Amino acid sequence: MEIADWRAKIDGLDEQIVKLLCERAGAAAAIGQLKVKTGANIYEPDREQSVLQHVAGCNTGELPADQLLVIYERIMDVMRSLQRR
Amino acid sequence: MEIADWRAKIDGLDEQIVKLLCERAGAAAAIGQLKVKTGANIYEPDREQSVLQHVAGCNTGELPADQLLVIYERIMDVMRSLQRR
Repeated sequence: MEIADWRAKIDGLDEQIVKLLCERAGAAAAIGQLKVKTGANIYEPDREQSVLQHVAGCNTGELPADQLLVIYERIMDVMRSLQRR
Repeated sequence: MEIADWRAKIDGLDEQIVKLLCERAGAAAAIGQLKVKTGANIYEPDREQSVLQHVAGCNTGELPADQLLVIYERIMDVMRSLQRR
């Protein structure tokens, strides 16, 4: 495969990744509303740790574990900020 | 839906997101090898800009545009670092 072919593949993957990130953001916002309603804290370190462990277990190996963590820490920062809106 | 239901949904989304991020990393690594072979630069700002525009166009609205950008900048930092290995 040429670079152009790989890039077309990446574009297709990005379309799916963005769709899933948006769905995830919708779910995070829904949780945020439930937390406000019940007076729960937005920041729940135990749940965040459990998400990171789950995610690490889904790695099929192309991404070094520390690099997947770096991406997911950013995703969770963003999701937490959505819950605070 | 309760918080536990939303979290189960998020866990399922994360499984798909990680799978796609790993596929994307595999494609980025393949492009990195082709770049080394042809002497092309790893950092290609025009292509990165085009990825960010494509991604922004896939946003279905749950994620504020600036927050999707923040996530994708991190993803692309990681992918660029994989190409340099």
